Amino acid sequence: MRIPVAVLGPTGYTGLELLEILSRHPGMEAAYLGSARSPGPRIDEEFPRLIGRTAEDVVRCMPIDHDAIGRAARLAFLCLPHEACLTHAPELLRRGVRVVDLSAAYRLADAGAYELAYGHRHTDAGNLRGAVYGLTEWTRDRVRGAALVANPGCYPTAAAIALLPLLRAGVIRESTIIIDAASGVSGAGREPKPHLHFVETAGNYSAYGIGTHRHQPEIEQTLRTLGARPAARTLFVPHLLPVERGILETIYAEPVDARTDTARLQEALNESYARERFVCVREHAPSLRDVVRTNRAHVNARVVAGRAVVVAAIDNLVKGAAGQAVQNANVMLGLDEHAGLE
Amino acid sequence: MRIPVAVLGPTGYTGLELLEILSRHPGMEAAYLGSARSPGPRIDEEFPRLIGRTAEDVVRCMPIDHDAIGRAARLAFLCLPHEACLTHAPELLRRGVRVVDLSAAYRLADAGAYELAYGHRHTDAGNLRGAVYGLTEWTRDRVRGAALVANPGCYPTAAAIALLPLLRAGVIRESTIIIDAASGVSGAGREPKPHLHFVETAGNYSAYGIGTHRHQPEIEQTLRTLGARPAARTLFVPHLLPVERGILETIYAEPVDARTDTARLQEALNESYARERFVCVREHAPSLRDVVRTNRAHVNARVVAGRAVVVAAIDNLVKGAAGQAVQNANVMLGLDEHAGLE
Amino acid sequence: MRIPVAVLGPTGYTGLELLEILSRHPGMEAAYLGSARSPGPRIDEEFPRLIGRTAEDVVRCMPIDHDAIGRAARLAFLCLPHEACLTHAPELLRRGVRVVDLSAAYRLADAGAYELAYGHRHTDAGNLRGAVYGLTEWTRDRVRGAALVANPGCYPTAAAIALLPLLRAGVIRESTIIIDAASGVSGAGREPKPHLHFVETAGNYSAYGIGTHRHQPEIEQTLRTLGARPAARTLFVPHLLPVERGILETIYAEPVDARTDTARLQEALNESYARERFVCVREHAPSLRDVVRTNRAHVNARVVAGRAVVVAAIDNLVKGAAGQAVQNANVMLGLDEHAGLE
Amino acid sequence: MRIPVAVLGPTGYTGLELLEILSRHPGMEAAYLGSARSPGPRIDEEFPRLIGRTAEDVVRCMPIDHDAIGRAARLAFLCLPHEACLTHAPELLRRGVRVVDLSAAYRLADAGAYELAYGHRHTDAGNLRGAVYGLTEWTRDRVRGAALVANPGCYPTAAAIALLPLLRAGVIRESTIIIDAASGVSGAGREPKPHLHFVETAGNYSAYGIGTHRHQPEIEQTLRTLGARPAARTLFVPHLLPVERGILETIYAEPVDARTDTARLQEALNESYARERFVCVREHAPSLRDVVRTNRAHVNARVVAGRAVVVAAIDNLVKGAAGQAVQNANVMLGLDEHAGLE
Repeated sequence: MRIPVAVLGPTGYTGLELLEILSRHPGMEAAYLGSARSPGPRIDEEFPRLIGRTAEDVVRCMPIDHDAIGRAARLAFLCLPHEACLTHAPELLRRGVRVVDLSAAYRLADAGAYELAYGHRHTDAGNLRGAVYGLTEWTRDRVRGAALVANPGCYPTAAAIALLPLLRAGVIRESTIIIDAASGVSGAGREPKPHLHFVETAGNYSAYGIGTHRHQPEIEQTLRTLGARPAARTLFVPHLLPVERGILETIYAEPVDARTDTARLQEALNESYARERFVCVREHAPSLRDVVRTNRAHVNARVVAGRAVVVAAIDNLVKGAAGQAVQNANVMLGLDEHAGLE
Repeated sequence: MRIPVAVLGPTGYTGLELLEILSRHPGMEAAYLGSARSPGPRIDEEFPRLIGRTAEDVVRCMPIDHDAIGRAARLAFLCLPHEACLTHAPELLRRGVRVVDLSAAYRLADAGAYELAYGHRHTDAGNLRGAVYGLTEWTRDRVRGAALVANPGCYPTAAAIALLPLLRAGVIRESTIIIDAASGVSGAGREPKPHLHFVETAGNYSAYGIGTHRHQPEIEQTLRTLGARPAARTLFVPHLLPVERGILETIYAEPVDARTDTARLQEALNESYARERFVCVREHAPSLRDVVRTNRAHVNARVVAGRAVVVAAIDNLVKGAAGQAVQNANVMLGLDEHAGLE
Repeated sequence: MRIPVAVLGPTGYTGLELLEILSRHPGMEAAYLGSARSPGPRIDEEFPRLIGRTAEDVVRCMPIDHDAIGRAARLAFLCLPHEACLTHAPELLRRGVRVVDLSAAYRLADAGAYELAYGHRHTDAGNLRGAVYGLTEWTRDRVRGAALVANPGCYPTAAAIALLPLLRAGVIRESTIIIDAASGVSGAGREPKPHLHFVETAGNYSAYGIGTHRHQPEIEQTLRTLGARPAARTLFVPHLLPVERGILETIYAEPVDARTDTARLQEALNESYARERFVCVREHAPSLRDVVRTNRAHVNARVVAGRAVVVAAIDNLVKGAAGQAVQNANVMLGLDEHAGLE
Repeated sequence: MRIPVAVLGPTGYTGLELLEILSRHPGMEAAYLGSARSPGPRIDEEFPRLIGRTAEDVVRCMPIDHDAIGRAARLAFLCLPHEACLTHAPELLRRGVRVVDLSAAYRLADAGAYELAYGHRHTDAGNLRGAVYGLTEWTRDRVRGAALVANPGCYPTAAAIALLPLLRAGVIRESTIIIDAASGVSGAGREPKPHLHFVETAGNYSAYGIGTHRHQPEIEQTLRTLGARPAARTLFVPHLLPVERGILETIYAEPVDARTDTARLQEALNESYARERFVCVREHAPSLRDVVRTNRAHVNARVVAGRAVVVAAIDNLVKGAAGQAVQNANVMLGLDEHAGLE
């Protein structure tokens, strides 16, 4: 008997990814699909690749009815816009439904910083206080008992996995970090936009949001709190890659002193991740192809020309979204943390 | 002194292609850009790759002002929606501006067939009668003196170049033609749409408009009139390729008799095209890469397993649109037909 | 306790796909990797995405030692070149190891036809007689008890799934079939070749092996035997798509009479596949994106302009290779036919 | 009457690009194609897109016969391997043929540095002394009279165009430069290799040669000499993009002081390039699509989070190779510098 869960907002790319993972999950099953669209579509008409892979009594998206969700599911994944999550999360929590929120609504502990980055009021300060940032490898003890988990952003997941071991080991200067990142197009969502038109994106590559991207405060918060480096600052420069999925970050920082070499950096990574199944410390720089469609992060660090260069790769839709969300839900529900994610 | 021409609707992909061709053209220059957008954008902000390649006094799109165009240009390229062309072409012609219309407005000689295919009234029967279908290699004598040239559709250009020699030589049965075609995404225009979103299109391939595409009546009209085969019928099945540009058509038909072999088909092609610089009869089946970003069509025919198989390739934006439009304009204006197109 | 199986030739794309499927399979596990390379590579160095997903005592490729395989595995998947399979299959069978052969070595019942198509002698006529063609939906009763299953080719799988119901229902003329097919590049294997170089393939599309491809005799054999149409003939024209994976076939045939309409064709498909989990009869023409990375075939048929047009889509590496191989192995080993394939 | 030139090594991607440019060039024409292959291929069989675009008496590649080239051409473009250029350049120069060498053979003034980077002896110290580094915008006065021009590497061209104005204006610290670069696959040449196989490259992205790429000494030499900054050091990290062509470099450096702002950086760029037709200083960060298939570099600089961030884009095959080669040849031969390059 699999634990029933709800997926709210299943018609985007993270929703699709989540449903594909759940269709193979031995301990959890989608029992309620909730959408703001009216009438709600059959999810297998929205995504024909789901035909025959979703139970017939669940396949049609229903309204986001908190009572109905409360009866149908023990946990809800929120793949909704930030503002909608601020509305629905408190209602679900009140009804005893645990929540993994894939939006940014509960990621930034400081509501003011949230409002600055996202441009609207944070209307649920109460739950914000109790929310746990679900970077599973680093916060699983608190995820376990959490009612509300804020699932990390895609870029911040890769950056944090790469940098936290180095900051905690004190081997790089926390004020010199430059994160040059590149993401596949699915990270920009499913809504058609001019710059996401195939003709514009294919064969193209460009930087965007240079130093102004909304993931920068999230990255810095994580480096400061989980990295125990209150002064951590970064320059974050994302690029749009002409691929469907995947994030690769090439990160530059100054080593803390002249004796800090490649071996010391790799050692710091190994110390943190030796027992982690979903983080792989590589001898060589990883590529997107090594990680796409897996819940794994691959990371490699070296010192060259007097600089630390760290390369980290994840799939933005899996480890950077739906996969990590299921990993968190596994922990919350007492299932094997890796269930459904191999 | 280059002949001044107008480009109306320069903000789409055929407009961009046209401007790139004109920027290298020794005998013709863009002297007026007209757009329905208000305010009109600078074309080099719309397409930064045009920065420095358009004269500063022309670079901003102006309203589609017929009098102003009449003063500024001897010929206008219409890259506008079909209905807009029905409005603007008669006004420009009245002012003595010759017109190459890249829309479908004047392609079908029968207004009723047009209305069936395009879903709106044809409001310019007068000019429809005098319009010349600008399949340059086959109609250049009439293009020369035309005031209004209907530039052929992209799929119909490739189909006609492949099939006309075979129909006129009487080597295939005109009622057995199947055109399996594949086009790059630029053929669908620049407006963002869900199925043209990079994530949906990359890695994808699909048939659409099976037997119902609007280019089918145009293809059949051309085969009947220029092919001199009143009974010519086709089944036309287009597919969407995950590439920016290019059309490849694999065409099947029954040979007229058992003695009709590969040599006879190739001979028919060679007879038609031996002196044509922009049509190349190949010994092997051509690929998209052989023709993209050129104004050339490559074509090859063979008999195999009792069937004629013809493969034709063009660039949908060049020989299938802007390139052939310039080729027609060259003929109309008495310039070297190949000018600006090598 | 999962059933131990061997994968011989795991360093190609079908091998990788097979190992990814087996890493999630609840009833079967890779217990022996055998490669002709010396020294055998660690499979997770060959494919870093397999790091941590293969048991440490299995991860290094061993020689193809029949005795060792006989001790380690109850069934072997052969992802080797055709000729190597002719060598290894009989040795493994002799040692009681059941075989699913992903090469073409045992697909054509007529050794002479094999030699013509593949250019070398068929040296194992004995096992050829007993081999079962593993088109699971159509031959599962014989697959169940088979010692040696010839796993169908990728193009033939899609063609057979699309056409067998129509031939058996007698709704199309068996001598008029044209299969216009397009495949992703992984179908051409992992060895680097000039025409598979990224720069040559990206943005390209071309027909190849027009009417001469080695899958044509396999397709015709299947249509004749499983379709019960001794006179079935086809023209098969494959194309190379600039995508990693997926096959889409657009198939043309004459309906048997004028009353045969879309409903009749779809009915024939539904009759065959109503209870098949891995074949989905669609109301609309499927696209690659609907099926890639699944073991499902999607198929749709219609009559238009007096022709039957059938569109079928599969993933060439899954339903067209490794997925169907596991499906066959599931049947052979008495496991749930769908295990590991959702 | 166009000036006759030779293209040696026309069967690679820079050779193809060069022939396409020359086919449109009003003042220069390919008069001799020389290849090390025996027998020499027809270039239009090698690249069918050149059919009909090369004179019939030139279309077949001939041996690299120095005397014949001396009779046929006034200038030779060398698109050969580095070592072959060291052999052929002196022979051609001796016969009065001027040379634009697209290899690295004459780029590094220090033969020892060359040997370290390229792994073989530099055997032509004599001509190395007189070679002019052909970064046209910065060295055109010396290019004009040069017998031998070393055409810059693709990555170094973009880096130099972006950084030289800033170094000469003294607005960034020369020891803090990090060049994060991404290139299309054509930069790796036409020879098929495992990591360039379509299946490996499509959907992929990776860093390579981190801090060890052979273009790093070339970049540093240029920054030191043309930038007048003897201490200039960089960290150069290239990445492989899944696109055919284009280079985008995102460059990080420390501003020289706290008052150095975006306006100051852009001003430095504008001062250098206000009158350069082929370098465009942009208000926004450029993307690949803005420059591919043009001979233009687009560049933008800003200060953000206390860092200078400069983004530069070129087409690696045009401004980064064949286009700049023609630009240099135009200058050498007294033609309009921009001829054939619009």
